[in-house]
Amino acid sequence: MNYKAILHVQDSQYCYALDDNTVELRLRVDKADKFDCVNVIYGNKYDFYLKRQTAPLEVRFGDADYDWYCCTLSLGDVRFVYVFELTYNGKKYYFSEDGLTENYDFSFAYYNSFQLPYINSADVMRPVSWMNSAVFYEIFVDRFFRGDLVKEDKYINLKWGDVPNPKSFAGGDLAGIAEKLDYIQSLGVNTLYLTPIFKSESNHKYDIYDYFDIDAHFGGKSAFKLLADKAHGRGMRIVLDAVFNHCSENTAQFRDVIKNGKKSPYFDWFIIRGERAVKGNFECFGVCDYMPKWNTSNPKVRDYLIDVALYWTREFGVDGWRLDVADEVSHDFWRHFRERIKAVKSDCVILGENWHDSYPFLRGEFDGVMNYALTKALTDYFVDGKLNAVQFAEKLSSLYMRNTITANSQVLNLLDSHDTHRFYTLCGKNIDKLMCALSVVFLHTGAPCVYYGTEIPLEGGYDPDCRRTMDWSKKGRLTDFIATLSSLREREEVQKGTVSFGNCGELFVLERKYAHTLRLSVNASDSPVQFEPRGKALVSHGLRDGRLTTGFVVEVY
Amino acid sequence: MNYKAILHVQDSQYCYALDDNTVELRLRVDKADKFDCVNVIYGNKYDFYLKRQTAPLEVRFGDADYDWYCCTLSLGDVRFVYVFELTYNGKKYYFSEDGLTENYDFSFAYYNSFQLPYINSADVMRPVSWMNSAVFYEIFVDRFFRGDLVKEDKYINLKWGDVPNPKSFAGGDLAGIAEKLDYIQSLGVNTLYLTPIFKSESNHKYDIYDYFDIDAHFGGKSAFKLLADKAHGRGMRIVLDAVFNHCSENTAQFRDVIKNGKKSPYFDWFIIRGERAVKGNFECFGVCDYMPKWNTSNPKVRDYLIDVALYWTREFGVDGWRLDVADEVSHDFWRHFRERIKAVKSDCVILGENWHDSYPFLRGEFDGVMNYALTKALTDYFVDGKLNAVQFAEKLSSLYMRNTITANSQVLNLLDSHDTHRFYTLCGKNIDKLMCALSVVFLHTGAPCVYYGTEIPLEGGYDPDCRRTMDWSKKGRLTDFIATLSSLREREEVQKGTVSFGNCGELFVLERKYAHTLRLSVNASDSPVQFEPRGKALVSHGLRDGRLTTGFVVEVY
Repeated sequence: MNYKAILHVQDSQYCYALDDNTVELRLRVDKADKFDCVNVIYGNKYDFYLKRQTAPLEVRFGDADYDWYCCTLSLGDVRFVYVFELTYNGKKYYFSEDGLTENYDFSFAYYNSFQLPYINSADVMRPVSWMNSAVFYEIFVDRFFRGDLVKEDKYINLKWGDVPNPKSFAGGDLAGIAEKLDYIQSLGVNTLYLTPIFKSESNHKYDIYDYFDIDAHFGGKSAFKLLADKAHGRGMRIVLDAVFNHCSENTAQFRDVIKNGKKSPYFDWFIIRGERAVKGNFECFGVCDYMPKWNTSNPKVRDYLIDVALYWTREFGVDGWRLDVADEVSHDFWRHFRERIKAVKSDCVILGENWHDSYPFLRGEFDGVMNYALTKALTDYFVDGKLNAVQFAEKLSSLYMRNTITANSQVLNLLDSHDTHRFYTLCGKNIDKLMCALSVVFLHTGAPCVYYGTEIPLEGGYDPDCRRTMDWSKKGRLTDFIATLSSLREREEVQKGTVSFGNCGELFVLERKYAHTLRLSVNASDSPVQFEPRGKALVSHGLRDGRLTTGFVVEVY
Repeated sequence: MNYKAILHVQDSQYCYALDDNTVELRLRVDKADKFDCVNVIYGNKYDFYLKRQTAPLEVRFGDADYDWYCCTLSLGDVRFVYVFELTYNGKKYYFSEDGLTENYDFSFAYYNSFQLPYINSADVMRPVSWMNSAVFYEIFVDRFFRGDLVKEDKYINLKWGDVPNPKSFAGGDLAGIAEKLDYIQSLGVNTLYLTPIFKSESNHKYDIYDYFDIDAHFGGKSAFKLLADKAHGRGMRIVLDAVFNHCSENTAQFRDVIKNGKKSPYFDWFIIRGERAVKGNFECFGVCDYMPKWNTSNPKVRDYLIDVALYWTREFGVDGWRLDVADEVSHDFWRHFRERIKAVKSDCVILGENWHDSYPFLRGEFDGVMNYALTKALTDYFVDGKLNAVQFAEKLSSLYMRNTITANSQVLNLLDSHDTHRFYTLCGKNIDKLMCALSVVFLHTGAPCVYYGTEIPLEGGYDPDCRRTMDWSKKGRLTDFIATLSSLREREEVQKGTVSFGNCGELFVLERKYAHTLRLSVNASDSPVQFEPRGKALVSHGLRDGRLTTGFVVEVY
């Protein structure tokens, strides 16, 4: 037995409360080790030496190296202590804080059992219920549609349809989005996610200089009010981009620091080395010294920026925040952010822009993150062939084990965004692969997020090419297809079902189980594969005469 | 290579900020695997594909199963991304979020490198500086010394010197402690840790009914004021016991709930199933239904209890809080507690009563915990013989790796307390072993905490026997010895040095390194062992003619 590979971490994604009296446990073991059985022996901390219960764990996820044994326990007493009991080649072992041992003395358990000492309601991460049925549509506002034809438009320097450069302004605005809500809803989309709309001199507006106003290019506050009201009137939701890591050098507070140096009351609102804020001696975003970094460790800055989010949430009914460069902002900031936002609107969703393993941010801070880890896996499988169907299933398993079930249900699954190449371009304009990848994005746990134009499909390389203007000249080839995938989101298997990943020969298989099983089978290759039906096909692409060419089948049984 | 045993966790005790620009990294590997070298390749997130630095890791800790490679990096740019490079049998491997791979493509690092995305000042855990030189003395107040001879004393039902039962009152009080400060200081003690002193009907006072007053048995507020002022006047500090998990059934708020049921404004200050608070349907401490559990998830309860701590901290200059049953209180509560206490007194120390792996509480909540894990290891080594010198060193290594260097410097090392058997009794009144164990407690990282009477030494089994009255009839056998150990705490090796554990033949060895090395060598067995001196002996016990019988040597070189 490779006991040194066994992993369990208390009060983490390996042991956490799903609700006020339900705990999920996970134990990672070497995949090569075949245990006769794995149990958890558990009880109440205060009489564990006398009274104990036993429950089995089962392998629910696995990759090439590890299996994850899991179980879900409903507790009467939430003062939860436990020890794992592993049977291997007929012999029992115990796994506790002391590691793997051949014996376990329950009379000393108060020193070395595992524990989740008490499930306190305030510590339970609660999912935002509407995320279960959400279908997001990300809009880069300047490039979507111009609705306001009478605005001051001398700033527009890009002809609609031309390829943009980093300084292009195409004229898209909030009135344009409002005008296209019928269209957006026809895709099955119910949630808008807009790149920043606050006052800023750039086309992307990630360098904000006034957080309490909407940029005039986009129509100002009145246009946002109209859009928000119209969308809400249709039962749609709006998620805005919160850029709280950095701002524009033209923000009033930073200008004051530039002018007054250490005498400015805002000097410690930024992170400045030395006496004056000259380029090179203050922290900024990336390599962009025109975007100074906020000192979010300063409680005044924290309160100022949280007040921004509260203002738009309260006054305009904003339904969620996508947090730009979220991982460079302090945990302290996000804990306060969550507490204050949720106090005002408990179902306001909080989604971090985190490209890496985001576990540290998903306990007490964000509801979910942009699932760029899935984006990378999809690219490796469908585009680069770095993963085959088996490896793709293994990758999705290990990614799922990074986070709690709760957090996994609140991520934003995306193929691409304003920060990546468009998937359609990456996969060599192979529309079959694009459709397969979209089927995974829609049927996985979490909410799908379609980048505007995917339905055309628009092409585009890296920024700024991925921010081309929307093509309104023709009906998109995938408009109906995306609407069909959206309709699958209404099924209880997709909204509430467990997930598992596997493979069936050459096919990648993703299953969602509730009362019934919804099964997605994907062939990412160009070679046709024999397809054995398991149930009633709801949607398929590439299936003919029992053979599946680059495509997929969604069945239910 | 057993690559499945390799462990690294981002933004945890395996990668964290020691200060605003210093990071400690740890990588756990199978002890059986001998790597040619282990490096970290690191840089700034935004140009990692272009510019990278390399630094070596070295094995600083190990147990029977694992070695921990560690390094400490001083960063210019704190947007820290990294990948490990392991060389094994001459071949290079990379370890990243994707696990162990033979190649690593730095152009995709933004997807799968490890990272500590930014060191935000607000997230850095800062040690309480005076803890470096603190020597704690835990006093069970009713049993230490009676100073107030004129108080109403009909409650006293135990003759001083008699063995107590759970209902005994012996008459010890705060005036008694004040009177004995000379004595306490003569031990080298500079910090008093008192079991609860607020209003309560029991002798132990863990069932508090008025948090804003001091119990009359102990002399009321005026006696505490006198003690606090007198102690502070001598440069001593006082740490109080905060019982915030539960209270007495006679607390005003709970009585109101008993009387008015759901109509009480305090109904949701407790955790009650059903309409009325009858025994059996409210949460309580342990199996004690006269100690209802506070609902610390309720912000009103949170604010009320934090106000208690703030009151005593502000008005009486309390220097720290030992948190009773800390792990059953919500993380949410403790985060608020820390923020508000530190805002009032940044060097007020926060110490949890956590018997288990306490990592989840040591990032953003407590400064340290009562180091019961060390207590258990000391018992296993000195008392039960469950560990030999090698295994004891391995155990201390793995315990050290549970937490950050910062947290490890802030724990309370103890042999025993009011909640355990006295160590002296456990080890069969073997004073040599008691002295050896004390030497470990004093020279390890963290602050030593001597339970009152250890210097006599008092004997005592489990509660209430471990709470016997202090014996003032004779000078303690270990009074001078403890004073000597306390004087070692003044050395820079003990205050600021790194720690390592090892063995030298039969001897357990603990080293603290700063400019010089301070080396503790212990023989826990009854068999004499040849002792090879390494430097100048500062203190020793059991050493004669180059042979060490049950005892120890402290050298410096």
